Amino acid sequence: MTSKIHFSDRLTQKIQQTKTPLVVGLDPRFDQLPAALKGSVSSIETTPADRARITVEFCKGVIDVVGPLVPAVKPQAAFFEKLGPLGMPALAEVVDYAIEAGLVVIMDAKRGDIGSTAAAYADAFLGRKPLSPWGCDALTINPYLGDDSLVPFMDAATERGAGLFVLVKTSNPGSKTFQEQSVNGQCLYSVVAQHVQGLAASDLGQCGYGSVGAVIGATHPQQLIELRAAMPNTIFLVPGLGAQGGTAADVAGAFDNDGLGAVINSSRAIIFAYQREQFSGASSWQAAVEQATLETKQQIADHTSAGKL
Amino acid sequence: MTSKIHFSDRLTQKIQQTKTPLVVGLDPRFDQLPAALKGSVSSIETTPADRARITVEFCKGVIDVVGPLVPAVKPQAAFFEKLGPLGMPALAEVVDYAIEAGLVVIMDAKRGDIGSTAAAYADAFLGRKPLSPWGCDALTINPYLGDDSLVPFMDAATERGAGLFVLVKTSNPGSKTFQEQSVNGQCLYSVVAQHVQGLAASDLGQCGYGSVGAVIGATHPQQLIELRAAMPNTIFLVPGLGAQGGTAADVAGAFDNDGLGAVINSSRAIIFAYQREQFSGASSWQAAVEQATLETKQQIADHTSAGKL
Repeated sequence: MTSKIHFSDRLTQKIQQTKTPLVVGLDPRFDQLPAALKGSVSSIETTPADRARITVEFCKGVIDVVGPLVPAVKPQAAFFEKLGPLGMPALAEVVDYAIEAGLVVIMDAKRGDIGSTAAAYADAFLGRKPLSPWGCDALTINPYLGDDSLVPFMDAATERGAGLFVLVKTSNPGSKTFQEQSVNGQCLYSVVAQHVQGLAASDLGQCGYGSVGAVIGATHPQQLIELRAAMPNTIFLVPGLGAQGGTAADVAGAFDNDGLGAVINSSRAIIFAYQREQFSGASSWQAAVEQATLETKQQIADHTSAGKL
Repeated sequence: MTSKIHFSDRLTQKIQQTKTPLVVGLDPRFDQLPAALKGSVSSIETTPADRARITVEFCKGVIDVVGPLVPAVKPQAAFFEKLGPLGMPALAEVVDYAIEAGLVVIMDAKRGDIGSTAAAYADAFLGRKPLSPWGCDALTINPYLGDDSLVPFMDAATERGAGLFVLVKTSNPGSKTFQEQSVNGQCLYSVVAQHVQGLAASDLGQCGYGSVGAVIGATHPQQLIELRAAMPNTIFLVPGLGAQGGTAADVAGAFDNDGLGAVINSSRAIIFAYQREQFSGASSWQAAVEQATLETKQQIADHTSAGKL
């Protein structure tokens, strides 16, 4: 499977193969990493190099567990950037390891800039090596800068069999501040959604979905239903399940009748499952990751059309 | 001068000291770097390490020239990320070098995410070392995610004497796509502007400006006038001068009566001045950078209230 196959087809194939739309978010908040990995090093004593090494070890440990169980992982760039410059080779190592494990890698970096700079971000991240130096399958991007800021991402994605997820309605409570401003009787996010659907329809895979997807939070079950209808060719990346309060039932509206058209991300509730009372009996932090992954898969299957996969 | 002095006061002091609001954008597009720096290495033969090394050499060469002439530089993260993981230590080296040269460093990375992730980005970039691992004075951020996504940036900036520039009306033609959508009879960017002004007013320096600023493109002279009136405590970061078509006269509206309250960014027209016919007589690419910097300073002084500095 090379990255030149259309992104939506590659992602859909992995969803069907693993029988789940669950994506595991790699948000390695250093303070929450299992003590077993930090060894005798206290968080005060750690050097930047220690933190980068331990972060890589943690992410690889998660990937070892979830690699056969889910279609994709979503590394969150912020937690690697927080480690300073040494965090970036660490991020690259995690991406490479996930690709080797057969996972689709969605880089969650929410990039966006004017055209020629957007092209540089696209060149940085979109497409497996050697198509891009970071070698990711997809990237999250921010639409605020407008249509000409999305075109270079779109062009690169189309050319390289990569994918994009444009922020439409984010999972945080404050998403209402601007995304729900009323524009001619509809919310701004609906205007953005129409634009994104147009982009998605312009580059369809055989599965009927485009290389451009949309980020829509699990915390907005009604909007997921509304936008699923308005965006028939757009794959949804749905964050907010678990720690942010979204439930499996809340994300039911994200899917088409075949249980396709969406991936559901859970980060903290899975990768830090060892901290949850429910998994306190697990034999290790990795066993807790596995139990939380299997439980979340089951919940999604029980409450959504993804149960048909 | 430690970074605990309020950001707006530090920036204003540097503007007064250098008698100009001109900021030099460090957009090291590798293909455009002077042949003198690339030596005998063709762009096909270069390794990622070569490209990172040459990029650092170029940026340091720009800083050597502009360090005494302007208050600040604005590294564009995209062109370093495009170099792959090795681009990030290169970016860090450039930031450090600029700080040592006495410049204010505005990291142009346009970050933005939900609250807890926004806090990680803030921790990564805001505040000089050891307050943050990247050690920057300020960061550009994207408002699309809403109020609770801005709060962690705001908190970190206030605590660390750092600054923020929130995208309000960007310089690209496509900024109209969403930023000019009509919300209750005004443009979306005006709604964002009011929010940003509120944040700015909540943490004022002695100069009367806040730690939160706004990005407003030089390509929108009328909006600069309108927003200057609507945002009396907000420092403007104005990109788009030069290669993007904005002129010194276009940015006149960005300033208050004392020639303060705004910084004007020029990137390509200065750092790649050696490619401009006007500077073809310069003895070196660095001499062209110096001539272009001095000329742009003079143009801004001639056409705006910054001439009073």
